[in-house]
Amino acid sequence: MRRDDKIILAHGSGGKLTRSLVSETFLKKFTHPALAELDDAARVRIGSDRICFTTDSYVVKPLFFPGGDIGTLAVYGTVNDLAVMGAEPLYISCGFIVEEGLELSLLDRIADSMAEACRIANVSIVTGDTKVVESGSADQLFINTTGVGLLPKGREFGIERIVPGNRVIVSGTIGDHAIAVLAAREDLGLKLDDLTTDCAPVNGLVRKVIDRFDGVKFMRDPTRGGLATVLCEIAESGRFSVHIWDEEIPVHREVKGICEILGFDPLYLANEGKVVMIVDGKIADEVCDVLRSDPLGVNAAVIGEIRADNPGDVVLHTVIGGSRLIKMLAGDQLPRIC
Amino acid sequence: MRRDDKIILAHGSGGKLTRSLVSETFLKKFTHPALAELDDAARVRIGSDRICFTTDSYVVKPLFFPGGDIGTLAVYGTVNDLAVMGAEPLYISCGFIVEEGLELSLLDRIADSMAEACRIANVSIVTGDTKVVESGSADQLFINTTGVGLLPKGREFGIERIVPGNRVIVSGTIGDHAIAVLAAREDLGLKLDDLTTDCAPVNGLVRKVIDRFDGVKFMRDPTRGGLATVLCEIAESGRFSVHIWDEEIPVHREVKGICEILGFDPLYLANEGKVVMIVDGKIADEVCDVLRSDPLGVNAAVIGEIRADNPGDVVLHTVIGGSRLIKMLAGDQLPRIC
Repeated sequence: MRRDDKIILAHGSGGKLTRSLVSETFLKKFTHPALAELDDAARVRIGSDRICFTTDSYVVKPLFFPGGDIGTLAVYGTVNDLAVMGAEPLYISCGFIVEEGLELSLLDRIADSMAEACRIANVSIVTGDTKVVESGSADQLFINTTGVGLLPKGREFGIERIVPGNRVIVSGTIGDHAIAVLAAREDLGLKLDDLTTDCAPVNGLVRKVIDRFDGVKFMRDPTRGGLATVLCEIAESGRFSVHIWDEEIPVHREVKGICEILGFDPLYLANEGKVVMIVDGKIADEVCDVLRSDPLGVNAAVIGEIRADNPGDVVLHTVIGGSRLIKMLAGDQLPRIC
Repeated sequence: MRRDDKIILAHGSGGKLTRSLVSETFLKKFTHPALAELDDAARVRIGSDRICFTTDSYVVKPLFFPGGDIGTLAVYGTVNDLAVMGAEPLYISCGFIVEEGLELSLLDRIADSMAEACRIANVSIVTGDTKVVESGSADQLFINTTGVGLLPKGREFGIERIVPGNRVIVSGTIGDHAIAVLAAREDLGLKLDDLTTDCAPVNGLVRKVIDRFDGVKFMRDPTRGGLATVLCEIAESGRFSVHIWDEEIPVHREVKGICEILGFDPLYLANEGKVVMIVDGKIADEVCDVLRSDPLGVNAAVIGEIRADNPGDVVLHTVIGGSRLIKMLAGDQLPRIC
């Protein structure tokens, strides 16, 4: 990264350039060890308790899309970042940046969505801030939500716990959110039959699994950058490879169709109500059964395994018996998806 | 507020319209009692501890101004919101919304400022997020910082503790930040001799006072809306009036000069390193001495008192012996000041 470079959209993609910005700019200056973990949320001690603490800004375009809006997204996104760390999400802060001229009725509807999302996810918005900028200085509305959750004793998940023989589980179809938002960008003329965003709080789903099983090694919600990016980040530890089977990966019929038309790869598409879990091989099928018993996990599947060969690689095995390496994206398939 | 209304800049001013937006839209939907307090930070319980939790988005324009930049502002602003609640600021989250095309070197300088500000305020950035939007969809850079701090047992400040006979203290000159940012808006052609933003972390200053004295009733940092808005919010409780003396209020010579030229009232101008304290009348002078012994409080002054007459009023007594009522601003003197 040269110092005369400029920020491009891919710096916000969650992929390779986001990584380089974070490691070459932020991690060199902000040196707290909790940040360096680069998890979905920081694990820190406060008083006699351990909490998880996570932040996300939402710039999704358009504000409303099939099955949700920027408000639901902002609440569930932050809830999910806490949940996959094993924390119990409790409190949410909410910072609005509003463009002058936005209709109050829109803000009202979005606040309604947030209130309803909080009720469903069992969290509370306890503090907030509203800034207004001149017309043309922001695009309608951006929302930051930051969350804190209590991390119970003994809840430790992390890439360092993953070993060969572990299995890879995804809790449902991938790419639904990205395609639902894409379809809402009217200029594309895409029409959906029954696909909506998967935007949902996974804290209940996650809890069903971690309360019952000891062998969960690692969890993450595959948002920006999708499933592929999560698996690449896991493999980057260099201690093992990740193998996944194309025909096992659940993809909604309409996502598959639109991806074929537009040349997108569902592996890289954002999800907002899914969990990737790496679990002990022995419990993988049972975990999947528990996930499938929940409405949010009906399409859960064991999609791959951790191996000792070729450490660092993520290998996709295709239906016809071939295989290809999965890499982090350098560019951005779909900006402003969350 | 009619439902066909639109957001205007004054909704972000911190004054009357911000209040109406918060009470008529957000407080009706988000019903957690900690939010309804409308303090600078929410007081909530987590595990066996009490924490304070606060959020602010920064949209200041321009990004750099005499004595600081959006990065210092973002860290100190959040530190100060925790400090005035009596909490010990500990962890900060940082969400960047970046406009495509921003020079990386600018982001680099701002991250340097944030790291330095964290060092000075003794807090850590432990989690972050970066979103990039297309050129024209944001104005260079917006930063959200959200902070958590530990609230020690017995630390209880609040408007409900204020009684007639209490005194009003301000920790230094008012309006410095607003005028420093205004001067940096080059098109105005304002030149400053020695005025800079007062942007600073007040946690050390506050602690010197609250560790020593029991009689501190209430504290707030007078940011957007300035000293006047804080005093109006206090008086709104309707149990007492607030009287302040014009000649006692510390105002920097250059702030006074520019306010006279441009017709601004320093009482409504934003500060970013000041505290308003309401304290027991008996300790007011001693508290002031402690504040003055700190570099951040050298201009601290007792500027007024709480009285039982005309409850709800904020009365400014002028040098020539007159008086006028101070009201919350309906409009916005200076948008995008923080």
